[in-house]
Formats: sequence, structure tokens, C-alpha cells
Amino acid sequence: SFRQCFILTCPKIVAIGGGTGISTMLRGLKSYTSNITAVITVADDGGGSGALRNDLGMLPPGDIRNCLLALAETEPVMEKLLAYRFKEGSLKGQSFGNLFLAAMNGIYDSFEQAVKHMAEVLAVTGAVYPVTEDNIFLVAELEDGTQIRGESRIGGHHLTHPGRIKRIMLDKPDAKPLGQALEAIYDADAIVLGPGSLYTSIIPNLLVNGVARAVYEAKAPKVYVCNIMTQPGETENYTAADHIEAINEHAGEPLVDICLVNSGKIKPSILKKYQNDGAGQVMIDISKIRRMGVRIIERDLVKISNDLVRHDSDKLARAVIDICRAG
Amino acid sequence: SFRQCFILTCPKIVAIGGGTGISTMLRGLKSYTSNITAVITVADDGGGSGALRNDLGMLPPGDIRNCLLALAETEPVMEKLLAYRFKEGSLKGQSFGNLFLAAMNGIYDSFEQAVKHMAEVLAVTGAVYPVTEDNIFLVAELEDGTQIRGESRIGGHHLTHPGRIKRIMLDKPDAKPLGQALEAIYDADAIVLGPGSLYTSIIPNLLVNGVARAVYEAKAPKVYVCNIMTQPGETENYTAADHIEAINEHAGEPLVDICLVNSGKIKPSILKKYQNDGAGQVMIDISKIRRMGVRIIERDLVKISNDLVRHDSDKLARAVIDICRAG
Repeated sequence: SFRQCFILTCPKIVAIGGGTGISTMLRGLKSYTSNITAVITVADDGGGSGALRNDLGMLPPGDIRNCLLALAETEPVMEKLLAYRFKEGSLKGQSFGNLFLAAMNGIYDSFEQAVKHMAEVLAVTGAVYPVTEDNIFLVAELEDGTQIRGESRIGGHHLTHPGRIKRIMLDKPDAKPLGQALEAIYDADAIVLGPGSLYTSIIPNLLVNGVARAVYEAKAPKVYVCNIMTQPGETENYTAADHIEAINEHAGEPLVDICLVNSGKIKPSILKKYQNDGAGQVMIDISKIRRMGVRIIERDLVKISNDLVRHDSDKLARAVIDICRAG
Repeated sequence: SFRQCFILTCPKIVAIGGGTGISTMLRGLKSYTSNITAVITVADDGGGSGALRNDLGMLPPGDIRNCLLALAETEPVMEKLLAYRFKEGSLKGQSFGNLFLAAMNGIYDSFEQAVKHMAEVLAVTGAVYPVTEDNIFLVAELEDGTQIRGESRIGGHHLTHPGRIKRIMLDKPDAKPLGQALEAIYDADAIVLGPGSLYTSIIPNLLVNGVARAVYEAKAPKVYVCNIMTQPGETENYTAADHIEAINEHAGEPLVDICLVNSGKIKPSILKKYQNDGAGQVMIDISKIRRMGVRIIERDLVKISNDLVRHDSDKLARAVIDICRAG
């Protein structure tokens, strides 16, 4: 197969992010390289993850679980099971995969060990690391000075308190990074930021002490996978350059070398639906991006499913692999 | 190995029971035959099983989970995980293995299908069947006429309401047996009742419509593995013959052909501890048992762990296999 042949020069890819975007990319990447490290934010405080966080005092399992499943080689039954959400009773809405990680967390000494052993059980290609083992929460500061605490409230803040996000912080400015995550970053052939929500999935990783610096100092090219659509409450009217700027400003360094953007067409009927929700296609302001010293790579990366605009797992993986090969 | 060599004439063993006793035997048996069917009671209403029963309206998973784990070929991590009990929060005391089966039950159409697919995932040797898919509860009638409802209250009833159990019933006299369980019983080379609690693990299976009749009509020898110690609240001062009589009376047929009893010695210091709790060694009233037409086989079957008297997994399995070989 392509994978076995390519594996001879198997590129070491570090993906940094959270949410479902990053797991979509990982699902595609594992066909092209077995050398994948996912560095994942642990600031989520909503849904089933938030419930377990409150109930068991553990780090939020959801984003990590998604990445483990994306990189796993499991039988269909196990895959179904790990994605299952309880439909009633006190566990209603909770994902079985989250409970799996919660039980692992009870058995092992640390969250990192729990994730590692879950990866073993699921025959995961590569490694998944929480960016930190500290119990962190996100705080957003809006342009009017208001602070909003908690990842789950930041994304939808525009519904109750309009206003653009000025910056985002961790409630613990001295959160300690996971050593293995830093090592993987320094050792990478390519570092991919995203895809994922700018302020709640990508940037939170860069706010953990030493992570932005490691990414900056690492010799690998840093690829930012730009979102295809803007997100209400996070990135209204943001251009691609605005996304890059937000990353660089929060990192305190000009991190991004390459910006990978979508050139695939989206039907007007679907764009209209997004417009009704206050979202739109991210404008690619080429000349501004070039002036920032960032290379733009345009590829068809889009997939429409249930009228939702998403990155296509395989298209995105191929684009990332092509960047690695080109050096 | 012995197993591979013996497998040429691999005896079909059906084990009927519940609780932990039956899983102890299964754990031993799987080294000697791959043709094992466990038929398990689903009347439990206490602990984690009872909680899920209330919360999700599912059949109690605990006894079935124990049998699946006993027959599974899993990696050590998975084994640890499935046996894990949550230590805090709203899931405190709940077993992860129970949640596993609960999620399976949410994914598949029926409890039987859920158990079957869990068995596949865990590479189980043989099959585990709930004796019925009906939502049954146990009711005990004491000698003074009092009725006690619920398996979890029957075992310990002597603490609040002294009195011997006269008979035990299901709240649904027309509970339907699982077809595959009946088929396995008719097709067996040996049918083993127990080991396990007489009134709360073994007899409840025989009360499901058609099960006692199938066991009676089946051509295989019926072996009752007698408890080593009496159980307060269930079998105070019961002799081996009393145990057999209770089974036959509840079955409405003289079911037991062979009674397998322990001849291994137990230290006086341990017997004394049991005496303090109102329990003692089951007396083997040989002549009475013989008069019932039941053959007695005496073997060292005992294992002491943490000062508790238990059946030894391997000793018991060897004894059962020897009975099968002798025909």
C-alpha cells in the first residue's frame, strides 16, 4: 500500500488543536504516516466532558477521546461502542468513550498515563498528548473589557453579550506543558496547527508555558490549516490573515510559515444557510498574508455533509503530506 | 497444550447459575473446553446492577459481566479496566464493565444481542445467555408466610426479619426463557448447576418457564456443585441433601444426578470466623443423598483467600471435566 511504501520516509507530523477538526485530519493522516503526534487542549468544560470534569475532578476527556478514536484501528463494534452516547437516565448524553478514559484515569497514576494506555488498548497509530496536565480553564477578554470564563461559554458568548474577542487567556498563566509534547514538537518534520476553532481549540495550546516557544524554535515548517468558514462568537468576518495574526499575537512570535486554505467551491444555497447564522466563507486576503511572510497553499479541501461545510479527511491529509514531501 | 489435545472430544458444558461462584468455575473450565455455555440469572436488583436497572430500564448486567470476563481472552489492561469500579462522583461504586454492557444494550436491539456482541469484542470462549429477557424480580416466602421482594433483600433478610426461606418465586410466573439457552441445555454433554447461592443464583434460573423441564429432559448428567459453606439468610444449617431437595422441589422434578462436594480440609480458625457470622461447613449426609438416587463425588475443591472459603477455579474445573470424561 501507499502507506507501507511511504513509511520508509515516514514524516513526523505534530498536530496541535482540539475539537473535532483535528480528529478529522488525524483520521486521514494515519493512512499516510504512522508517525503522528496529536497535542490536544484540555480546557473544555461543557457537555459530557464538563460533567466528568466536575464529577470526578479529571481533565476533560472528549477532545482526546476523539483523537484516539481517529487514530485507532478498532473493530467496527468497538468503534460504535466508543462513540455511543447514553440516551436516558443519569448518563444521558454522556459518551461511552469518555467513561472509558475516566475509568483509565481512575486506574492509572496520571491523565497522561491513562491516555497512553487507552491508546494501547485501541491500537492507536502515533501518540496523543494532553498539552498540559494542569486543571486549566479558558478566559476570553472582549473588546469592551468583559471577561468570559469557560470554553463552553466563549463560543456562544455573542448570543448573550455581543462583542469581538480581544484576547484569550488561561486562568493559570503558569500551566506546565507535557514534556513529551514539547519533545515531539522539536523533533517534528511538520507542525500543523488546526484545523479547529481559533480561540477555543488552537490558541489554548499555545498559551501553555513553553509551547509557543517550542513551536517557534522547532526547525519544522509550521502549517496553519485555516478554517473554511468563520465562527459566530469567535471569528465573525475574520479573513485568513486575521486568523494568522491572532495566532501570532497570542504566541508572541510569528509562528505560521505556511497557510493551507481551501479553494474548493461551496454551493450558494449552503453559503446562504451559514449567512443566516452570522457565518460566511473566510476571505483569503492573499497580498496581506504574503506581506506577513507567510506562504499560501490553496487546495480543494472541502467536504459537504448534511449541508455542513467541513474539511475532508483525505483531501486534507494529502495536502499536509504533500507539504511534508516538498520539504 | 492439554486444551488443544482434549478439544478433539471437547465436551459441551452448560453451567447454570449467577453471582461470582459460576464465574469462578468458568474461568477454570475455559482451559479444558471451548464449548461452554453459561445460563445466567437476571434477577439481581442491588448494587451497580440495580442502579443501572433503575436508571436505564435494562436487565442487570453484573452477573453476566462477571461470566463474560471469566471466559474472555483480553489483554491485562482491558481486564483491569472492565473490573474497575469508579471511586467518586455520581458513578461511585459502579463497575466499568457494567457500563460497557449498558452501552452495548443501548446500541443493539436486545439485551441478548448486547451480551453476544460484548462477547465478540472480548474474544469470549463459549456463550453467555441471560436465562430470560423478561424484567423479573425474585420474591422469597419465609416459613411464617412473610414475602420478601428483591434479590438484594433476600440474602440478608435474617438481619431484619429472621426465618427460613420456604420457597422462592419470580414476580412473573410466565417469564419466557431464551431459546438459545434451552437449545444448549438439550444439546449438552454435562449440565452443571452452580456453584453459587442456592436461592438467589441457582434456583431463579429453574423458575423461568421451561428451564427446569429442559434440564430434566436433557440427556446429559446433571451435576450440582454444592456450596462448601452455608449462607446466613439463605441456607442456615442446610446439609448437602437439603440443598439438593430445595433444587428438586423448586424444579418440580428430581433434577440432580450427581452432587459434587468438597472434601478438602478447612482450618479450624477459619471455620470459627464463619461460625461467628452464623455460617458453617455444609454437612454431607451421604446416606440420605444416596437414598435420593443421587451419586456423590467428593473432591478437594477448596481455596482459601483472605480467610474466605471459596471454590478453587482449577480444582473445580478438573472435577467437572473428569465427570464429563467418565460419561
